Amino acid sequence: MGEEKEDPKERVVDISLKDLSKKLEEFASARDWDKHHSPRNLLLAMVREVGEVSEIFQWRGEVEKGLPNWEESDKEHLGEELSDVLLYLIRLSDICGIDLADAASRKIVKNSIKYPSPKLL
Amino acid sequence: MGEEKEDPKERVVDISLKDLSKKLEEFASARDWDKHHSPRNLLLAMVREVGEVSEIFQWRGEVEKGLPNWEESDKEHLGEELSDVLLYLIRLSDICGIDLADAASRKIVKNSIKYPSPKLL
Amino acid sequence: MGEEKEDPKERVVDISLKDLSKKLEEFASARDWDKHHSPRNLLLAMVREVGEVSEIFQWRGEVEKGLPNWEESDKEHLGEELSDVLLYLIRLSDICGIDLADAASRKIVKNSIKYPSPKLL
Amino acid sequence: MGEEKEDPKERVVDISLKDLSKKLEEFASARDWDKHHSPRNLLLAMVREVGEVSEIFQWRGEVEKGLPNWEESDKEHLGEELSDVLLYLIRLSDICGIDLADAASRKIVKNSIKYPSPKLL
Repeated sequence: MGEEKEDPKERVVDISLKDLSKKLEEFASARDWDKHHSPRNLLLAMVREVGEVSEIFQWRGEVEKGLPNWEESDKEHLGEELSDVLLYLIRLSDICGIDLADAASRKIVKNSIKYPSPKLL
Repeated sequence: MGEEKEDPKERVVDISLKDLSKKLEEFASARDWDKHHSPRNLLLAMVREVGEVSEIFQWRGEVEKGLPNWEESDKEHLGEELSDVLLYLIRLSDICGIDLADAASRKIVKNSIKYPSPKLL
Repeated sequence: MGEEKEDPKERVVDISLKDLSKKLEEFASARDWDKHHSPRNLLLAMVREVGEVSEIFQWRGEVEKGLPNWEESDKEHLGEELSDVLLYLIRLSDICGIDLADAASRKIVKNSIKYPSPKLL
Repeated sequence: MGEEKEDPKERVVDISLKDLSKKLEEFASARDWDKHHSPRNLLLAMVREVGEVSEIFQWRGEVEKGLPNWEESDKEHLGEELSDVLLYLIRLSDICGIDLADAASRKIVKNSIKYPSPKLL
């Protein structure tokens, strides 16, 4: 799964989309949850998790980058809800037969063409 | 960015969350878009993209896994909209100072504990 | 607020958008909540409530009209979450200075023109 | 549908939830669209419209009440998208057999009990 730098104090966790897909597939399979993982079930589960993220932001007015002044527990909660969106998004893509790593890589290229960098002009 | 196996017919594109973060940061920076990338702006952009995904599914009734009978162009469209959700989700996490790779990895572990696999019992 | 027919067994509750607006305005004002009711706060609150509705539907697969076989408590829960979407939608419109009753009435007329009824052709 | 016209300058358009329901039912029936109006189809259609509303707000940062400085065309666009959310919400409620006017009226009462007005204490 992730890569770890030598110095444990500067441990950097990384993970690829394909690794996440595999973990989620194993997770669902081990619990016999595949039967629940239809495209629209997963889509609605993702919508719900986006709602959970929104709940965290809804009464805060404009929020500064880096979330200064947020409680550590609120940041942790946000990390969990953002993760839930990610996990359902990856699972939805897989169940639909969409290669999200490929699609996202191509979307970035497409965006680069649609919005050329002024520095390259 | 991705890994490519030797055999071009079995090319597997993969990409990590950190690599995606870096690409998006460079993309925004090169276009001077950082100023638009506040947490709530990015959250609403993500909500909008979830709406775009929903639009693709909204009149289809229940949809089978793998999307049999879908036009190739509809699948490609879906891949783009799912990618847009992913890209805003990663960007939102970064701007909030949330390490999504770390958070998602820990969420999977947490879920494993919350929902123990029957095969392990 | 609503009208009530004489026969209590056939009581029909109805309520207008303007009456709902007024109730919500009084509610917020009495609690000094106006300061929290900025457009984007209310929008995110609405997104969250749409997430709550989605949660009720997410693992059910296709659902039949009229929700046969649903527990009475699930129907009641759904009614509450749909109401929350409505109340935030009305409040959001009011805070934005949008006359929702007028806008919705005009949208129905616009839709009638965009999608002419075959029976009228 | 409830227009009152005495003074054209003070024209107040209002409409009730039941009247909107009836209009939407007739609209769908005249176009033979009932077959598309399953609960989850309508829910996803509503999610999509919430995405459209979000799109209007996504790059604006915090927005002031009353939308000062907005173009008239943007306000009109917002009114249409808010209306679309309302119309799908009402239609979804009806198809589910939920009486939204009754549910919303009761939700307001419930909220009043949950959050007592300080002025009444």
